[in-house]
Amino acid sequence: MELLEQFWKKEKRALARIISLVENNGPEKEEVLAKIYPHTGTAQIVGITGAPGAGKSSLTDSLIELLRREGKTVAVVAVDPSSPFTGGALLGDRIRMQNHALDEGVFIRSMGSRGSLGGISAATKDVVKVLDAFGYDYIIVETVGVGQGELDVMHVADTVLVVLTPAAGDSIQTIKAGIMEIADIFVVNKADLPGAGKMVTDVNAMLDLKGEQLVWRPPVVKTSTTTGEGLEELLELIKKHFAFLAESSELEKRRQERREREIIEIAMNALYRKLKFLLTEEDIKHLIERVNRKEIPPQAASEELLKRLGVRR
Amino acid sequence: MELLEQFWKKEKRALARIISLVENNGPEKEEVLAKIYPHTGTAQIVGITGAPGAGKSSLTDSLIELLRREGKTVAVVAVDPSSPFTGGALLGDRIRMQNHALDEGVFIRSMGSRGSLGGISAATKDVVKVLDAFGYDYIIVETVGVGQGELDVMHVADTVLVVLTPAAGDSIQTIKAGIMEIADIFVVNKADLPGAGKMVTDVNAMLDLKGEQLVWRPPVVKTSTTTGEGLEELLELIKKHFAFLAESSELEKRRQERREREIIEIAMNALYRKLKFLLTEEDIKHLIERVNRKEIPPQAASEELLKRLGVRR
Repeated sequence: MELLEQFWKKEKRALARIISLVENNGPEKEEVLAKIYPHTGTAQIVGITGAPGAGKSSLTDSLIELLRREGKTVAVVAVDPSSPFTGGALLGDRIRMQNHALDEGVFIRSMGSRGSLGGISAATKDVVKVLDAFGYDYIIVETVGVGQGELDVMHVADTVLVVLTPAAGDSIQTIKAGIMEIADIFVVNKADLPGAGKMVTDVNAMLDLKGEQLVWRPPVVKTSTTTGEGLEELLELIKKHFAFLAESSELEKRRQERREREIIEIAMNALYRKLKFLLTEEDIKHLIERVNRKEIPPQAASEELLKRLGVRR
Repeated sequence: MELLEQFWKKEKRALARIISLVENNGPEKEEVLAKIYPHTGTAQIVGITGAPGAGKSSLTDSLIELLRREGKTVAVVAVDPSSPFTGGALLGDRIRMQNHALDEGVFIRSMGSRGSLGGISAATKDVVKVLDAFGYDYIIVETVGVGQGELDVMHVADTVLVVLTPAAGDSIQTIKAGIMEIADIFVVNKADLPGAGKMVTDVNAMLDLKGEQLVWRPPVVKTSTTTGEGLEELLELIKKHFAFLAESSELEKRRQERREREIIEIAMNALYRKLKFLLTEEDIKHLIERVNRKEIPPQAASEELLKRLGVRR
């Protein structure tokens, strides 16, 4: 395949085209992913998540700069759960990141959650694999928002940064359940604002509660992209975490769990499409009408669907 | 079944036990749900969602009071995406709602997301059915947080209230994608705080953008559980929305969509459990090891899993 040949020659246009192909479920997607897969596993994948407005894009920007100074190549996947109401704000962020657009060692890609058949999480994983195989040293996956979809996206990362801010109302209590548990490093960004110190104390107090159970106690670092405070320290912590993963065999463990999760996810997506398709068939429509008339419960209809799929009990 | 006999006699203890049975996937769950199902469909189901701290529990409290004055019975399902870090705060809310604990016409149940095998969304739907069959006039489903899981929970409702507050940083731009689209009524709570008027204007401006496409334009109401402002108006709007649904055949359409979604969800949960089980079998473990060694891509392992399930291509 010519496209892949160009890809192996490190042509960025081929990279972009392959990503589009993967995102849009193009006909050669499976083939390309299968060929690329053996060449993955060398990049360090950093996830950045946190509430909207926490400064994730600016942090990404700063990390890109520091890594480029060290001669490392960086790819960014910015995942936007697209909505007509947030589109504008996010676009601004993306444009800002285009500062690096002319830098050959940097690649930035935005992904919306619309239009990706298998779900944003599956699509992101595939895109990360493509970037990994292309040879980027670091891949930063940034997600806006803190819902379940975003948590799933973070499973792709070796190191997860949870970005908090000392802004009013952003107290520990109101932080979305689940988000605290996935952090490898806590970043208290906008450290120039009042309340940053208290936020650090609060996060540490929370970590104290967890105490002994932690093999890796997530460090808490204060950063400011305005003053530059803490940014180099943050990069050091990212490297330290990766070294910890590699030395403790946690890295292989995580990546293996990730693969299992992904294998199930791919299978589940395929099953979902099959189920949706079944719903359009006449006899299944009749079955649903019976549920509507309350002649049978939804459970009975689900069982019939599974039978129709061919699934053994 | 004796338990069901007591249930039909409207014994609250039987109700609580059946809910536990449904939540914990007890052995008689399917049988009970099948028997209960034909008796569902009379309650009006109101969903309340919004960011943590928006005052959802206080609003629920106020709605209970207003409805009780009209002699209506009310059940509340408070869905807590449980986390060691938020547990405390939520517990406080629940205790506060227990104001109504001695009122025979009120039933309040908290549900955590842990321990429910089929996912919180499926469990909530089942519990709502039980409450509906028991005969409550109104069922309020309240979810903390605004992630995908919570959006799924909201699918159970006929009328969805999205609660916003004029608090700093809570601007329209930062509201989680997806949450704005599911609102039937926007509630700008804590109307006594500055900025409430601007929030109303912003939401209306956003709705103007959507314009013609809306069959029901979600009204925006300012409320304060401190001063009582807007609470009666809110209840009127809830009734108006339900009347709109009933008159426009939207109600039947929504409930039918809900049933289809539920049928798929039940089937997907069953498939997920089957897939997870398959992963523990020796030959599948070997397959995953081959993925780990990068001999085959994850996609190939997924296909093998589907074959093992018996799914026809």
